[in-house]
Amino acid sequence: MIAASIGGVGESVGYDEVVSTNEAINTDRIRNEAFRSKVVSADEAAALIHDGASIGFSGFVGAGYPKAIPDSLAKHAAAAHERGEHFQVNVYTGASTDHALDGILAESEAIAFRTPFSTDGSLRKQINNGSVRYIDTHLSHLAQQVEEGFFDHLDFAVIEVSGIDEDGHLIPSTSLGNNKTWLEQADKVILEVNEWQPEQLNGIHDVYYSVDVPPHRKPIPLVGATDRIGVPYLEVDLDKVVAVVETGGGDRNTKFTPLDEVSKAIGDNVVKFFKQEEEAGRLPKGKLLPLQSGIGNVANAVLAGLETGGYKGLECFSEVIQDGMLGLIKSGTVEVASATALSLSPDVIDEFRENIDFYNKHIILRPQEISNNPELIRRIGVVAMNGMLEADIYGNVNSTHVMGTKMMNGIGGSGDFARNGYISIFLSPSVAKNGDISAIVPFVSHVDHTEHDTQVIVTEYGFADLRGKTPRERAQALIAIAHPSYRAQLQDYFDRANAQPNAGQTPHILPEALSWHQRFLDTGSMLQGEAE
Amino acid sequence: MIAASIGGVGESVGYDEVVSTNEAINTDRIRNEAFRSKVVSADEAAALIHDGASIGFSGFVGAGYPKAIPDSLAKHAAAAHERGEHFQVNVYTGASTDHALDGILAESEAIAFRTPFSTDGSLRKQINNGSVRYIDTHLSHLAQQVEEGFFDHLDFAVIEVSGIDEDGHLIPSTSLGNNKTWLEQADKVILEVNEWQPEQLNGIHDVYYSVDVPPHRKPIPLVGATDRIGVPYLEVDLDKVVAVVETGGGDRNTKFTPLDEVSKAIGDNVVKFFKQEEEAGRLPKGKLLPLQSGIGNVANAVLAGLETGGYKGLECFSEVIQDGMLGLIKSGTVEVASATALSLSPDVIDEFRENIDFYNKHIILRPQEISNNPELIRRIGVVAMNGMLEADIYGNVNSTHVMGTKMMNGIGGSGDFARNGYISIFLSPSVAKNGDISAIVPFVSHVDHTEHDTQVIVTEYGFADLRGKTPRERAQALIAIAHPSYRAQLQDYFDRANAQPNAGQTPHILPEALSWHQRFLDTGSMLQGEAE
Repeated sequence: MIAASIGGVGESVGYDEVVSTNEAINTDRIRNEAFRSKVVSADEAAALIHDGASIGFSGFVGAGYPKAIPDSLAKHAAAAHERGEHFQVNVYTGASTDHALDGILAESEAIAFRTPFSTDGSLRKQINNGSVRYIDTHLSHLAQQVEEGFFDHLDFAVIEVSGIDEDGHLIPSTSLGNNKTWLEQADKVILEVNEWQPEQLNGIHDVYYSVDVPPHRKPIPLVGATDRIGVPYLEVDLDKVVAVVETGGGDRNTKFTPLDEVSKAIGDNVVKFFKQEEEAGRLPKGKLLPLQSGIGNVANAVLAGLETGGYKGLECFSEVIQDGMLGLIKSGTVEVASATALSLSPDVIDEFRENIDFYNKHIILRPQEISNNPELIRRIGVVAMNGMLEADIYGNVNSTHVMGTKMMNGIGGSGDFARNGYISIFLSPSVAKNGDISAIVPFVSHVDHTEHDTQVIVTEYGFADLRGKTPRERAQALIAIAHPSYRAQLQDYFDRANAQPNAGQTPHILPEALSWHQRFLDTGSMLQGEAE
Repeated sequence: MIAASIGGVGESVGYDEVVSTNEAINTDRIRNEAFRSKVVSADEAAALIHDGASIGFSGFVGAGYPKAIPDSLAKHAAAAHERGEHFQVNVYTGASTDHALDGILAESEAIAFRTPFSTDGSLRKQINNGSVRYIDTHLSHLAQQVEEGFFDHLDFAVIEVSGIDEDGHLIPSTSLGNNKTWLEQADKVILEVNEWQPEQLNGIHDVYYSVDVPPHRKPIPLVGATDRIGVPYLEVDLDKVVAVVETGGGDRNTKFTPLDEVSKAIGDNVVKFFKQEEEAGRLPKGKLLPLQSGIGNVANAVLAGLETGGYKGLECFSEVIQDGMLGLIKSGTVEVASATALSLSPDVIDEFRENIDFYNKHIILRPQEISNNPELIRRIGVVAMNGMLEADIYGNVNSTHVMGTKMMNGIGGSGDFARNGYISIFLSPSVAKNGDISAIVPFVSHVDHTEHDTQVIVTEYGFADLRGKTPRERAQALIAIAHPSYRAQLQDYFDRANAQPNAGQTPHILPEALSWHQRFLDTGSMLQGEAE
């Protein structure tokens, strides 16, 4: 079954392989002789990658990205550029990586194309000036669409693992992301074996190998967040492995800032919503349904709210396990957290490593085609909680484009969860930029989640439950949770739109609809009469 | 299993039941004595329905809606209004029905609330002036969300069936829609037994009874469009049945206009796209993948294109079987068509009825929670083809709101298929209103399908394959298939947006973004310099 879906086996003989000269190979981490024979330096491995190559890298939200090849590749690119040669590659990942991958390659002008998600500042500039071709893709779509041939064929997979066992199975690192698919689809494979990653990661992963593409798909047999349906390792065709590189660097995730009052209030409002749902019998009492929580401080605040809300034994079915989750597992608030990445900041990494045997019992890492799978998200009834840039008064949500044009990061997995979840919740502080940007606007400048897919919107001022509400009723619910300094302005827009003859199902004044964003660009504030 | 999910059994005793006085009951159609004892007139049955009632009606795109109760209910409402009394009901259906349901009730001002989809002109006016509360809902979402308590509790289910067998099983009519869920969820049930519907419909349906709601869901065992996974009948709790009404009227679907050149060209362009995909190995040669095709003349033209394109033995996994499908089944182009409704116009209804035993072997009707199910659509790799009102140059699609404010019909199932399909295709003539409205605009006035979910856009001028294209590249591909009279205007907008400093990932000139729609409202045309 697996062999059939690994492509290009017959063509893999005769690659230029770099013969290892390394005498001190870590035989605990590379237990298979055939793989040991392929150990080379990062520079030697990176030199195998040609201009124009399409590369599937490991890495998901700062976890499990390769630590050495990107740096060597950036140096190769810079050297080529100094010689006046063209050298750029196409970068496919799980999601965001780290400055050490996206940033370093971008700064060497070594990226021609990037998908599906990135948060790096240097790369963002190149995306927004059009010098890097960027496609913002649902995280659940990329693996299948590469396999289906909707993107370029992958020349290389560059994958961090924590070890290689006697049988040649790869013990994954802190993220799985699209690694399974990259290993299958790429012509050549470069492995980074990172001895910094704890050996006890062995067993935490669950890699399901029977996803396939239509018309050969079968039901995925997962019926709960706690289910294990696969194997704890990745497979790779040895003939495709052109280099193995030993590394030792740690994941370098961003530190979290301490929870501020606004984030805490948002977390509390989410819990208030949950209590309402439990009272109404729409969520199982005290148990809820499997939770998906996005990334960052607000998401961490929501998790903290669950603990103070007195919950025990919850299940999470999410993309990323971040700092806040460890405390919740320790306290028993969360029984099992399923995700595709374990993305811990330096603040808690020691806590995890010291108690890894405990945490391993409560954490499952899956490929993102499983963690973000619409079949599973709909089946198990995930409660989706994601951040947003802005929502309009009718509940359309912008997650990606600042003022409608500038890419912030990308849609990530928010659409995977919002579209097929049991309840989809979007969260944001009511204002940004010291109050100059309102998170509730008349008309969003870009739509990533339509009114059909947004059910609850939460700010520090409360939650707007949009279910069962018409557009006009949604407007009133959303204006009520806008920042007080914007409520009159929003109400004025809505009232005038609604008072027009033939106002329609969704009243708007088209010439004014995007004027808040233009006002911000012109004056530095969305507030009327401010700085004008 | 079924009994457990039918609610309110213990509370169903003691309803006011109307005792039948009808002496000439059709015992061929109502074979169960207990049901025969509940036969009453439509007026008597409608009189059971109270002001403010929430009613789940059968009916999906002009097929299988109740023929008698809506008319009687409208008369009751009109009489109540004449007496100065309030009388309005909340109308839940499968999708659109017919003037005989939505239109008649709307004209009697008897509808307070409507979901999930409607095409009736009289009702549209009331939706757009705000006098009817309308919630535009994904068709795959409504059944589960009613069951989950996100909408009002249903007081009544009013369901057309073609018969009732000896065991009290209901032989469904020409659509299944949400009937299974309405029968389970409603407190009281009124059945219309329509003897106009052919008896041979018995066996065409496949009703799957194990969908459940989270956290109790299991995989749905369907792996191909031809699979049957349920039973051919609907179940109902006899104690909840408060009336059975005999009717005889036919479904009254709109006649199709003959295929025009524009529709034919769109159909041909879809086939050209399929041939490209087959050549590239992205669709199985000559077989494609299960097709979903929307509603109306363009959809019919696409089906006709498949026949002239020489395909044989195709499978369809769709919502609605319309006129064009019968010819394709007859010619062998389509082997099996799976849908939730058999919505035939008077032109072909005789053909179907005369050859029903043949067609029954090639048609499967399922509940819409199965026909539109994201799990199944992703699994079997449905190729989704849906109409649209407009797309913008970056591939965002508006399916619902004319000029951003007026509800046309609703999103229907387009999002169910586009979001989870193998390939999502949107179709439209390049212009409407004799050229005064362009289907390609700088910025859509409402978004129902985001850039992340639209992969191919087709007009009579060609197909724009958006896969693997950045926003800037998408703009060029889409301008190329716009109507020639709008191409220069679109190119000018894009060029100026793109030339701005800090143009971003998705260049726009915000004050101009919605100006095409405002120009149409002001001058009657989106063309610059026309009628201005």
